[in-house]
Amino acid sequence: MIARARELDAADPLRAFRALFELPEGVIYLDGNSLGALPAATPARLEQVIRGEWGEGLIRSWNSADWIGAARRVGGKIAPLIGAQPHEVVAADSTSVNLFKLIAAALDMQREGQGARKVILSEPGNFPTDLYMIAGLERQGLAARRLADRDRLINALDGDVALLMLTHVHYKTGALHDMVELTKAAHAAGALVLWDLSHSCGALPVDLNAANADFAVGCGYKYLNGGPGAPAYAFVAERHHAALHQPLTGWFGHAAPFAFSDDYAPAEGIDRLQCGTSPILGLAALEVGVDLIAEIGVRRLYAKSQALSAFFLHCLGEWGLDIELASPIDGDARGSQLSFRHPEAYAICQALIARGVIGDFRDPDILRLGFAPAYLRFEDMAEAAGHLREVLHMDEWKRPEFRERATVT
Amino acid sequence: MIARARELDAADPLRAFRALFELPEGVIYLDGNSLGALPAATPARLEQVIRGEWGEGLIRSWNSADWIGAARRVGGKIAPLIGAQPHEVVAADSTSVNLFKLIAAALDMQREGQGARKVILSEPGNFPTDLYMIAGLERQGLAARRLADRDRLINALDGDVALLMLTHVHYKTGALHDMVELTKAAHAAGALVLWDLSHSCGALPVDLNAANADFAVGCGYKYLNGGPGAPAYAFVAERHHAALHQPLTGWFGHAAPFAFSDDYAPAEGIDRLQCGTSPILGLAALEVGVDLIAEIGVRRLYAKSQALSAFFLHCLGEWGLDIELASPIDGDARGSQLSFRHPEAYAICQALIARGVIGDFRDPDILRLGFAPAYLRFEDMAEAAGHLREVLHMDEWKRPEFRERATVT
Repeated sequence: MIARARELDAADPLRAFRALFELPEGVIYLDGNSLGALPAATPARLEQVIRGEWGEGLIRSWNSADWIGAARRVGGKIAPLIGAQPHEVVAADSTSVNLFKLIAAALDMQREGQGARKVILSEPGNFPTDLYMIAGLERQGLAARRLADRDRLINALDGDVALLMLTHVHYKTGALHDMVELTKAAHAAGALVLWDLSHSCGALPVDLNAANADFAVGCGYKYLNGGPGAPAYAFVAERHHAALHQPLTGWFGHAAPFAFSDDYAPAEGIDRLQCGTSPILGLAALEVGVDLIAEIGVRRLYAKSQALSAFFLHCLGEWGLDIELASPIDGDARGSQLSFRHPEAYAICQALIARGVIGDFRDPDILRLGFAPAYLRFEDMAEAAGHLREVLHMDEWKRPEFRERATVT
Repeated sequence: MIARARELDAADPLRAFRALFELPEGVIYLDGNSLGALPAATPARLEQVIRGEWGEGLIRSWNSADWIGAARRVGGKIAPLIGAQPHEVVAADSTSVNLFKLIAAALDMQREGQGARKVILSEPGNFPTDLYMIAGLERQGLAARRLADRDRLINALDGDVALLMLTHVHYKTGALHDMVELTKAAHAAGALVLWDLSHSCGALPVDLNAANADFAVGCGYKYLNGGPGAPAYAFVAERHHAALHQPLTGWFGHAAPFAFSDDYAPAEGIDRLQCGTSPILGLAALEVGVDLIAEIGVRRLYAKSQALSAFFLHCLGEWGLDIELASPIDGDARGSQLSFRHPEAYAICQALIARGVIGDFRDPDILRLGFAPAYLRFEDMAEAAGHLREVLHMDEWKRPEFRERATVT
């Protein structure tokens, strides 16, 4: 297996990019879908921002280092990765906060329309924060949540649905929604659509405008390698810009923030999605990660990610390893990860981590292995599969130290 | 003046702390109330977070480096600076977003109470984002804004007022509100109170609990020296924790974020004010700044800030400089700044910047000079006052290059 893996690595057109990341010795990192690795260029760029732009430039850097344009600049660089125009994307706040803005903006548009629809339709088991962000609006009397299993979503699109909100690639299983079909069905039912691209962007091609999507959000710290808690991004299709009213009406979304007037007037276009002062350190780190993913190219990344996961499954198959796959078996139907279902998934995950294979556990029974294609090798696949085999065959996961739950899993 | 300034510097008990900041050569920085200077310890700490915690530790650092506790830990360190208990403060999001959470939480409490009050009372000319954050809630039908001049605020507290929301130290003039008196008056009228401490915390003593305040927010990048766009903080008095419902119901505010349940359940206590994933780089930089201000001590900082501004006014007086003071003349009635009113304030500010004296301009006619006491010397006061005199007496501000407006002022 290792020999075959090395042949695949030698033929890999992306093999040189691994050196552009700082990866710890002795670790096979299969959790880039939770927190992406550190780009080698990030420490020097942050040093420059901290010592040069902040320390030397001080307040002047809002103009001289274009801090004021950072949210739009980084958003504009994310845009081509998701099939958006540069002026349709802004980098700001967290994914959760951006979800709130856009759910509320959709409800606002539907209030302006006929009928005052207020149902937000999603699926059970969607990433928790996506579902949670409806709760606050529900308590305010502005929204009502409806959940339908993924094969019944289209049936659930009735005349009360204001917004269909889904995560494009499911965080637990990696299963992919058909963005084109669901967007079309939602529009036919008079609903708007919001896609969470947290597990898509940077790992597989996304074409929001080809799908005629209305809104999208996504995470900066997974496949974009923006660092822990990096700023997130938000997309609004150009056709909605003029009518967009989101409730987090802060000064960075104002038409003239430095006029210091008492009354709010939204900025033109996507800028009205900004709220507070831009987080400059976070945006600087995110920009390095986005530049790197853009340089490698999403289509090449996706091709490699499919080859990596296929090879991982091939290794398990060759060794006759019997563990239930929770992800779609068809590579075209999933994102850049493989998830396995096992009642002892937590302990198995801990045993793998002790061996230097870092994946993660998702309650209650999912072992999740992410294959960030920018820095993983086929050799890593063969080795990780070998470790998984040994952990399972040697009952290593039964050791008590692997069963103690940490705060963050 | 310089000789006198040097005597004052020699006797200054805080003189050694200037060396703990990185200040550019040839600059007198009087804008620490807009963006605080870089603490000397910050670059190394960020390097450690980026290379060590992120690069080496990767996803494991949520537990091993206690990233998961960062928002509470930094909040807990801010607490003693503002007269709060450690479990009453959390560092998260931006000031604007925290304003939204707490305005909405106050409205939620008032809906639960009798009468459904929905007026948010503030003053015209409050910092724009404070006023703007009411606009989104107003459009949603949840709030109504009322503005009253500062000497009429108490009269404006009628039975419709849900929340009195004020900035403790006025961003333009530095004028200080009487927190104790206004909080008492609001409570007597059945209203809650939210204090914005952006221009107070780190520069003068604040005692939220002695004033019986309900809520507070504040900025991390001014006197706390947390870096450009640093995370902000929010305070909720312990007595309100159980009944607090804020609408940004994200996964970091959930009682069990890693249980990944479909339904939102707020965390106990102040944690329910968190929303999305904590911005780790920003929190790490903020923590260095907060530690440093805590080490110096707010009472000593305040004493020095009053001495600095008094000496600056003394210099102007000695030189017979005629420029209108927009700040209270009484040192006890203002924060750590002096503002001057002049129709050519913008050009004067630019002329000073060209001489290395960095203050800022606030539309339409305010020249604002902030005296961050942690790193400024009396010598800086004498020199800055001298430059101001020269700019005014030599009509230097009339040069055309000083009249061109930049994006950020």
